[in-house]
Amino acid sequence: MNYENLANTYGTPLYIYNFDEVKLRYLELKESFYARKSLICYAVKANSNLSLLKYLANLGAGFDCVSYNEVKKALLAGALKYKIIFSGVGKKDSEIKSALKDDILMINIESFAELNRVEAIAKELNIEARISIRVNPNIDPKTHPYISTGLNENKFGVSIDEAKRMYIKAKNSKFLNPIGIHFHIGSQLSDIKPIHEAASIVAKLMKELKTLEIDIKFFDIGGGIGVRYKDEKEINLYEYAQGILAALKGQDVTIVCEIGRFLVSKAGELLTKVLYEKINNNKRFVIVDSAMNDLLRPSLYDAYHKIVALNGNDELFNCDIVGPVCESGDFLGKNRELPNLKSGDLLVVKNVGAYGFSMSSNYNSRLRAAEIAIINNKIKLIRKRETFEDLIANEVDLLGEE
Amino acid sequence: MNYENLANTYGTPLYIYNFDEVKLRYLELKESFYARKSLICYAVKANSNLSLLKYLANLGAGFDCVSYNEVKKALLAGALKYKIIFSGVGKKDSEIKSALKDDILMINIESFAELNRVEAIAKELNIEARISIRVNPNIDPKTHPYISTGLNENKFGVSIDEAKRMYIKAKNSKFLNPIGIHFHIGSQLSDIKPIHEAASIVAKLMKELKTLEIDIKFFDIGGGIGVRYKDEKEINLYEYAQGILAALKGQDVTIVCEIGRFLVSKAGELLTKVLYEKINNNKRFVIVDSAMNDLLRPSLYDAYHKIVALNGNDELFNCDIVGPVCESGDFLGKNRELPNLKSGDLLVVKNVGAYGFSMSSNYNSRLRAAEIAIINNKIKLIRKRETFEDLIANEVDLLGEE
Ligand SMILES: Cc1ncc(COP(=O)(O)O)c(C=O)c1O
Ligand SMILES: Cc1ncc(COP(=O)(O)O)c(C=O)c1O
Repeated sequence: MNYENLANTYGTPLYIYNFDEVKLRYLELKESFYARKSLICYAVKANSNLSLLKYLANLGAGFDCVSYNEVKKALLAGALKYKIIFSGVGKKDSEIKSALKDDILMINIESFAELNRVEAIAKELNIEARISIRVNPNIDPKTHPYISTGLNENKFGVSIDEAKRMYIKAKNSKFLNPIGIHFHIGSQLSDIKPIHEAASIVAKLMKELKTLEIDIKFFDIGGGIGVRYKDEKEINLYEYAQGILAALKGQDVTIVCEIGRFLVSKAGELLTKVLYEKINNNKRFVIVDSAMNDLLRPSLYDAYHKIVALNGNDELFNCDIVGPVCESGDFLGKNRELPNLKSGDLLVVKNVGAYGFSMSSNYNSRLRAAEIAIINNKIKLIRKRETFEDLIANEVDLLGEE
Repeated sequence: MNYENLANTYGTPLYIYNFDEVKLRYLELKESFYARKSLICYAVKANSNLSLLKYLANLGAGFDCVSYNEVKKALLAGALKYKIIFSGVGKKDSEIKSALKDDILMINIESFAELNRVEAIAKELNIEARISIRVNPNIDPKTHPYISTGLNENKFGVSIDEAKRMYIKAKNSKFLNPIGIHFHIGSQLSDIKPIHEAASIVAKLMKELKTLEIDIKFFDIGGGIGVRYKDEKEINLYEYAQGILAALKGQDVTIVCEIGRFLVSKAGELLTKVLYEKINNNKRFVIVDSAMNDLLRPSLYDAYHKIVALNGNDELFNCDIVGPVCESGDFLGKNRELPNLKSGDLLVVKNVGAYGFSMSSNYNSRLRAAEIAIINNKIKLIRKRETFEDLIANEVDLLGEE
């Protein structure tokens, strides 16, 4: 890839996604559930670019959405309504109503209070709401505490007992149709054991529900397949799937998964330009034109992203790669080995396709980056760089005389 | 204030700023330097709403900007060009050029490489660039490591020795005019000693420069005055100013400060609505319609913000206040005491005027909040709530056939 050309054409910072790579990941995952009914739902939150959603929809993917805006984006991008799930711990009435009207596959429900709201709204619309209940299997996923979601003490899902009560209520309601069961224990998992344990626990609950004549059709195993940012163990997809199938032995259901990071992370790169090098007290800083507003993961999770220099010779020296934002927490990488760099040299931050652009902001009045896709070796702009006019659009007309 | 009405009129989440309060803070600060030449520059990064900038400009404030977009916003809001400073560790050539053309007060320079760039660009424009140099006095400000900036091992400023070399170079350049000296040791400071120590060190350097016939006119003491989020000690402004004046004894300069948080933090509230209450394993969660995308400080810095319920009776119970975003790191407050709440009840998150909206994002495809101001007891919309159309504006036209 000619990064120099890309920088000249589209400017920096620039998010570059290789859609061909996304396709490979999608097919690999789909393949691992070969010969079973499965629905790969892409977790839109990881990267919600419309062209990416369209590309995935064309591959046959479904979509896991955590806000009604994500549902709307998926539909706009051509998703099939019966492949859309609406998850999330805090849905507004208006969001539930819109999703029910859109007749999507199902709503993942996270509390008894929410079940009641969905029932009331379905009644108002005089329809039957297809639902799934998120069970919290109380399993430690062994990941960053901020993205661990399967333990009892967090806000997600409901306990096994509460889930049973909710399913019974749903079965007895004219306006609720419980067709799914759901769990998600955390993101960036590198160990499959916790997922399999969770699957066993939830599959057992599903069996019990059957005896109550509650017939679950969709077994949603959540997302969370980790990727290698540095030296993390990678999950073997075959073993991942086999463990799920083993847990489901004898039960005929469609396996649903809600995968974000695994599908898009590695396909994404952030191209950035060196502004200055500086040395403070023997510590070398490479200051680049991307910052925490472009990629929050290093600041927020202390996440590691590999950073590669495209110019410079072979001699490497220690440095921190930092952005222009006025916070010490504004860094892309610490204690890395890079060649001597000069203003204008390009760096590539790897593995940023997931939770990269989607968490970006306008902090320091910085404009959000452009995004391009590589599809079949062709380059396509998929998001225009923001302009100053975008930045002030919702404020400037309100500038009064005060 | 009738929050119920505000929620009905403007929706939630809603940022509410009391501009009258901002005015009080501004006057208090200005007053503390009474009888000395002083320029209070508002640190735009804390909250860059255009109407807020205009309000401050009308009070006579200057502006500390960390990107050229901030300069542009300040000018648009009516700031006087000779009261604008352009700071920041990573300025692009295009930004430097624009700021020089705008003839702002001065550019704060953070490295020798940057000094060279500014000189080259000033030469190209055939003008003399007024500059200031940010000195890193190597003082521990005793604040959160992410917002501490005065120690040698971070990216900010230059050492005393490097500063001297830079001033000498600037003095000898036809295209550089060193009129200022600058330090900023960190944000949310509750101890004035480190600021005074830094001021003494930098004032001493200024004296030395005088012997070299480098005549500094602006002594920029940075920002960082802390506020009380919970039980932090608050800085006494009189003592703060007296210590600075003592350090400057015998030197006739204009004192510049770059204050963000102190001016706007307390004036801001985030109004949010309860969606559900839920209990997981005896832990109570209050799920509200604001999330980490609206207010990142709790997730990013583990920051404390007081949260007040507007409804409910007097009996209080422990709970976490969390948002709808699918991350355990998405919380507004942990282990708080609040009454029993029902869907639709309102909560107010306090002290969010600084680094609140300015760090907000569209994560989970959530729309950024509206902002209103209270001015003279009148309510004024100062930023429209984002729409779905805003969200997709830079993407939808690029949806091709792939
Ligand atoms: C409920 C749910 N499903 C799916 C995902 C996607 O996770 P990942 O991107 O790790 O696959 C998340 C991530 O936070 C989630 O909370
Ligand atoms: C150089 C500089 N000046 C001023 C400020 C404003 O600080 P505060 O909002 O704490 O006053 C900051 C904050 O990060 C800064 O980096």
